[in-house]
Amino acid sequence: MIVSEIIRKKREGQAHTQEEINFIITGAAKESIPDYQLSAWLMSVFFQSMSEQETLFLTQATKNSGESYNWKKLNPKLQNFALVDKHSTGGVGDKVSLVIVPLAIELGIKVPMMSGRGLGHTGGTVDKLLSISGFKMDIAPEKAALLLEEVGACMLSQTERLCPADKKLYHLRDVTATVESYPLITASIVSKKWAEGCESIVFDVKYGEGAFMESKEKAETLASWLIKESKLAGLKARGLLTRMEEPLGTCIGNALEVEESVWILKNEFPSSIHKELAQDLQKLCCQTAAQMALLGGTRSDFEKTVKECEEILSSGKAFAHFDKLVRAQGGNLQWFEELPRAKSFDLKATKDGFVGDIQARKLGLLGLELGIGRKKMDDKIIPSSGIEILVGVRSKITSGDCIARIRSHDALEKSYLNKIVDCFVIHDTCPPRNGDLLWKILH
Amino acid sequence: MIVSEIIRKKREGQAHTQEEINFIITGAAKESIPDYQLSAWLMSVFFQSMSEQETLFLTQATKNSGESYNWKKLNPKLQNFALVDKHSTGGVGDKVSLVIVPLAIELGIKVPMMSGRGLGHTGGTVDKLLSISGFKMDIAPEKAALLLEEVGACMLSQTERLCPADKKLYHLRDVTATVESYPLITASIVSKKWAEGCESIVFDVKYGEGAFMESKEKAETLASWLIKESKLAGLKARGLLTRMEEPLGTCIGNALEVEESVWILKNEFPSSIHKELAQDLQKLCCQTAAQMALLGGTRSDFEKTVKECEEILSSGKAFAHFDKLVRAQGGNLQWFEELPRAKSFDLKATKDGFVGDIQARKLGLLGLELGIGRKKMDDKIIPSSGIEILVGVRSKITSGDCIARIRSHDALEKSYLNKIVDCFVIHDTCPPRNGDLLWKILH
Repeated sequence: MIVSEIIRKKREGQAHTQEEINFIITGAAKESIPDYQLSAWLMSVFFQSMSEQETLFLTQATKNSGESYNWKKLNPKLQNFALVDKHSTGGVGDKVSLVIVPLAIELGIKVPMMSGRGLGHTGGTVDKLLSISGFKMDIAPEKAALLLEEVGACMLSQTERLCPADKKLYHLRDVTATVESYPLITASIVSKKWAEGCESIVFDVKYGEGAFMESKEKAETLASWLIKESKLAGLKARGLLTRMEEPLGTCIGNALEVEESVWILKNEFPSSIHKELAQDLQKLCCQTAAQMALLGGTRSDFEKTVKECEEILSSGKAFAHFDKLVRAQGGNLQWFEELPRAKSFDLKATKDGFVGDIQARKLGLLGLELGIGRKKMDDKIIPSSGIEILVGVRSKITSGDCIARIRSHDALEKSYLNKIVDCFVIHDTCPPRNGDLLWKILH
Repeated sequence: MIVSEIIRKKREGQAHTQEEINFIITGAAKESIPDYQLSAWLMSVFFQSMSEQETLFLTQATKNSGESYNWKKLNPKLQNFALVDKHSTGGVGDKVSLVIVPLAIELGIKVPMMSGRGLGHTGGTVDKLLSISGFKMDIAPEKAALLLEEVGACMLSQTERLCPADKKLYHLRDVTATVESYPLITASIVSKKWAEGCESIVFDVKYGEGAFMESKEKAETLASWLIKESKLAGLKARGLLTRMEEPLGTCIGNALEVEESVWILKNEFPSSIHKELAQDLQKLCCQTAAQMALLGGTRSDFEKTVKECEEILSSGKAFAHFDKLVRAQGGNLQWFEELPRAKSFDLKATKDGFVGDIQARKLGLLGLELGIGRKKMDDKIIPSSGIEILVGVRSKITSGDCIARIRSHDALEKSYLNKIVDCFVIHDTCPPRNGDLLWKILH
């Protein structure tokens, strides 16, 4: 096959055959097709899009470019359980995975979760969990299959061997303005979930200023692509459309987010934090876990299961599952006490009024300077760094009030701190209540 | 500037600034922008096109990426002459340049011609001229400026230093299905003519099965782009739309085409060849040279100048100019006798009827096997190889008649020779006369 003829075909708006897509994706994984041809092809896919069928071929070829997992083959004792995972399109302060996994375990499903590292203004589950002393995420499949049986979940990092074609294409898309393509995004996400061996998947597709997809409409379109292609791939799927304007919860930063997850898991919050923010997040976690149980078939009534999740948190059972999982994956007995904690700097409001917006994307980007996340894939994370948010949207503020706290080992420039304060937009009048983070459920 | 943001801008259909285009083109020439970003940008230009203004910026940036020539500065004696060149989009058997340069000299204009090497099924003027023993095309600018004065023309090969950004982009476009874009084609052609230092330019834009642009409409669109952008660049320009279905003239192959040029220049044809084909070509050469004189201002009546050209050929003056030019550029005294000539193999028709088509593109591609041209830029040319066409469209044929002659040092496979015979499509009835090669003149 001639690569330039395959590019020309897509450029002219014709549909690819499975053989053509396999040829491109195998060539990307093996690096036998030069980057300049891959990027021209990606741009023509951006303009001409792909059909459902082509996207399935692309998803399948991407999955097949690396290794995949079959948990029930690795551990036949999992036979009667539903294997359900969740995928989020990424958000600032998004520690939902850490809360829903213990909830899902208690709801009787098994969660074989593989996560990526953070890039850009949104964090990564791997970075958060690795702030726990001793915690290991590169676990052999046989051991992970045992954890699934005995603990109910495993939380792994995606290896280099999972969908290598996606790694290649993702890097190219990032630097060639070809990220925003539904078939390319869909194939990238679904291929990894398919390879990871889950049977059902709940997609948390975020919209708003801090999200990958800024508009509700685009988020909804992406969610339907993800659900449609997952089903074509033989996975059960549904999508949650959730708001991402303010950060999720009260903490941004890796160890800090583990700490906040523990507050939620125990339903015990320190008095200093803004409880409404934490409770909004807690509710979203219960809703997400309930959807996982519905999809996995262990529960059937959504509202009742959300209530049940709240009880699981209050009972201490959720934290017990998390504690067991952390220790099963190498965490120390005293892991919570040993979470790295940096010095804190208070940030004060400079005017009176009501908090209107807390700009998630800007906070996420400013957090990169603290080492919360990465600008480039080889940047180093500082697990103890973070930002604590002490006020919520609609909070009444007087100049001089403490609105946030920075966690950092190093002293910080005044101009930098001012930029953080500016992320809290103060209005003269109290804005209306935003309502639930969960807007819509797509089947 | 961030390359991916420049790509995104074009992708979204926004116009580039001159700074953005300069940044991309300088980056291409210096190889400071990776190929994968250039090719994604090229594909977004393919889809979103460019305005007249953007295309001018692109043309100018491409010209400025390398050296350019100012002949009147190099040789002030050229001050009162018009510097006119011709550019053809390429054809099979296209030796027009070799005939029009001597005609143009006699019509009182100066021709600073820089040509490229052939690639694909169409030949290159450089390859044809270099089949002349001793002929040199890499001549220092100062010497070339003297030739312009004393001989009236110089026929040079484009150096590596002429528009290096174009070389980079052309190579990428060829393998990424981004060739067929009017602004990219236009900037590629006009930048080189601009850098080469001509003041006026006649574009020979070919259409038909053997041409770069197959349809009349596309050829006309390209011609108007070329004229428009040349004028914006300060050059006088006009376009000839000419038919390229059969090969041009009776010979394909480098030394053979020089030989045919000499027949036309002397208006003396051997009895074996099909005279109608040669005369069609001769007429096109006279029309092209006449347009050059009109553009250069040394003549004002087209039909009269075409007639004058015919007389110049018959008088021997055109050949005298060519002979002088060949010797001034290093050709031996006996250069015509010394042209390399390979053994010839006759090809015979296998059925009765009338010649309907002589498929130029197929013949051009089959010619590559003989070493007439190049598939890849580093393929070696065999100057003596060629194909002589002994019949024309509408010729009455009886099975066994000799329809073509192959020139080759090596014996050729029967299956290969049959493919050549198949390029002569035999009809039962005589097809209508095609008429002039020149269809339309655009100003």
